[in-house]
Amino acid sequence: MTDDSDRGTRRISDRTIAILAHEKFPERAKTAIGVMRYGDYDVAAVIDRDTAGDRVTDHVPDLEDAPIVDSFEAARDLESDLDALLIGIAPIGGGFDESWRPDVTAAIEAGCDVISGLHYFLSADEQFSVLAEETGVDLWDVRKPHDDLTVSEGIAAEVGADVVLTVGTDCSVGKMTVSQELLGAARERGIDAGFVPTGQTGIMISGWGNPVDRVISDFTAGAVEEMILEIGDEHDLLFVEGQGSIVHPAYSGVTCSILHGAMADALVLCHASGRDAVHGYESFPLPPLPEYVDLYESLAEPVHATSVVAGALNTSEIDGDVDAREAVAEYSEAIGVPATDPVRFDADGALDAVLEGVDR
Amino acid sequence: MTDDSDRGTRRISDRTIAILAHEKFPERAKTAIGVMRYGDYDVAAVIDRDTAGDRVTDHVPDLEDAPIVDSFEAARDLESDLDALLIGIAPIGGGFDESWRPDVTAAIEAGCDVISGLHYFLSADEQFSVLAEETGVDLWDVRKPHDDLTVSEGIAAEVGADVVLTVGTDCSVGKMTVSQELLGAARERGIDAGFVPTGQTGIMISGWGNPVDRVISDFTAGAVEEMILEIGDEHDLLFVEGQGSIVHPAYSGVTCSILHGAMADALVLCHASGRDAVHGYESFPLPPLPEYVDLYESLAEPVHATSVVAGALNTSEIDGDVDAREAVAEYSEAIGVPATDPVRFDADGALDAVLEGVDR
Repeated sequence: MTDDSDRGTRRISDRTIAILAHEKFPERAKTAIGVMRYGDYDVAAVIDRDTAGDRVTDHVPDLEDAPIVDSFEAARDLESDLDALLIGIAPIGGGFDESWRPDVTAAIEAGCDVISGLHYFLSADEQFSVLAEETGVDLWDVRKPHDDLTVSEGIAAEVGADVVLTVGTDCSVGKMTVSQELLGAARERGIDAGFVPTGQTGIMISGWGNPVDRVISDFTAGAVEEMILEIGDEHDLLFVEGQGSIVHPAYSGVTCSILHGAMADALVLCHASGRDAVHGYESFPLPPLPEYVDLYESLAEPVHATSVVAGALNTSEIDGDVDAREAVAEYSEAIGVPATDPVRFDADGALDAVLEGVDR
Repeated sequence: MTDDSDRGTRRISDRTIAILAHEKFPERAKTAIGVMRYGDYDVAAVIDRDTAGDRVTDHVPDLEDAPIVDSFEAARDLESDLDALLIGIAPIGGGFDESWRPDVTAAIEAGCDVISGLHYFLSADEQFSVLAEETGVDLWDVRKPHDDLTVSEGIAAEVGADVVLTVGTDCSVGKMTVSQELLGAARERGIDAGFVPTGQTGIMISGWGNPVDRVISDFTAGAVEEMILEIGDEHDLLFVEGQGSIVHPAYSGVTCSILHGAMADALVLCHASGRDAVHGYESFPLPPLPEYVDLYESLAEPVHATSVVAGALNTSEIDGDVDAREAVAEYSEAIGVPATDPVRFDADGALDAVLEGVDR
């Protein structure tokens, strides 16, 4: 895997990969699904010993199809020209599951790079790093921030592109997905749009980016600003992947740093239908939806005035499309701007509102 | 220096130290002054080659007096039983000034511990670490977070103590000082009060603490919570040292993490008279004072409802006491709660408001 710049940018397109997702595909393989849905990799196989023998579309019909196999060796038997193994799952805590060691070892021995978003850095694993040195492969730990990050200067707004940030009512409501759907819809209309990744899946999809939740807190806004400055004059529109929520008991600082570091021209508020308490912190009820609009806008204003111009609702918990449309309409009503579920329906209505919003 | 616990707590009282402040005492030696004013160290000498020969009280009349000398060796000639050398200044960027190397080397050779709040870790300096190993001294880098930090659980409010957090309109308005003045005033009234340090000077004064601006952003709220859980049942009242400001272009994430991690029962809003733009970011005007009250309260509310109950104004830029009192009165009027300058006048009025506030 080629390191193209100081920022650790990797080439993604035309690279053939296998995705490790043992015992978790597809429901608990969020990274694998995100990479398959939005990445430019050529996915030769998914590795999952539980569903081996099935095909990807048996489980997720709208993904590009690929076989599911039980090991890296089996993936290589199908496709001898593999470029990389991508770890597409994460146990709670982000540790390394020792049952994956044979697959990772086999990949490195076969000359394949390994792409990982685990908190446990493969490059710090003695066995893997020695072996990778011998075979000349790249162990890409996407959650490892680069070394020369610094404080924000408060100048992200100076780039040529209009900047759109996805913000959320909570963690895991679909901010990365919404950013990607809006990006895709904008590009379909011929708009020169770029993506600023802030989390592991976004970084894997893009081949570059700062994992902001792993950055020293003094430099978190700076890590976002750095990325916007890096590509902000190359595009007309930028979608910045948000993280967490401004009222999250643990992660609000990350959210606040992104909000002020990005100096966005427009915000898209993301929510998941049925969510009424903070994910994993059930004793904390979510505040009423309009309060989020006020909070994000009033907090952003002293650094860079902006407003919530569109909403995105994840309706995956709702069975029928009629009920889902009703939920989206209620959500739009509550936050006072157009909304959609860009995965279930399409991103066009939200994109219209975004384009109007940044044009104001 | 004894390491008393996993948290790296150090004994402070009855330790005799020299404070290095070359070319910066007193105006640009904020850490030295803070440690001398609020710490329990016995300060044998200040080391500053520019003011050597003077005495501390020639420059700062209200500090305990000590001689100023030009080197560690000279300090040791005056007091042979030195326990530690404390670095009381920081160049912009937090690097190590090589002109200090002879003093630090001499201290380690003499068996003295070295206490440093620099970004540059003395323990990572090859020469110092080898020498420290030989002489058995402790290189205490107070800005180095301990390794086992984790995410906040949102349970700081469960401790027995009432928690008071100092928040600010900007960086460098005196949050640490205000916390210490309130702590001292509470103890004078016989209240069992504790201090939760979040920055380098506070940590040096207290002998323990997490430097929250150096913590990985995901764990910043957790680092605050951990400290409150550690001492929150041993006291009736806790003063938590705030950092930054909620509208700071670079550091707002740290502030937000402390606000939500601390789950404070009352907030004290700190400001410096005459400050009308963000320190070091002059193109960002400070918002009107009442907006800070609304912002801090509305942002805190979904995690733990609290309110601004008192204000502290740093009036050091104002010459006369009459004008300073007027500025304090205007500040109190603007934020709608009692206020004072606890350094220039006293902390009693603010403490009364705090005690009433946590009692509600």
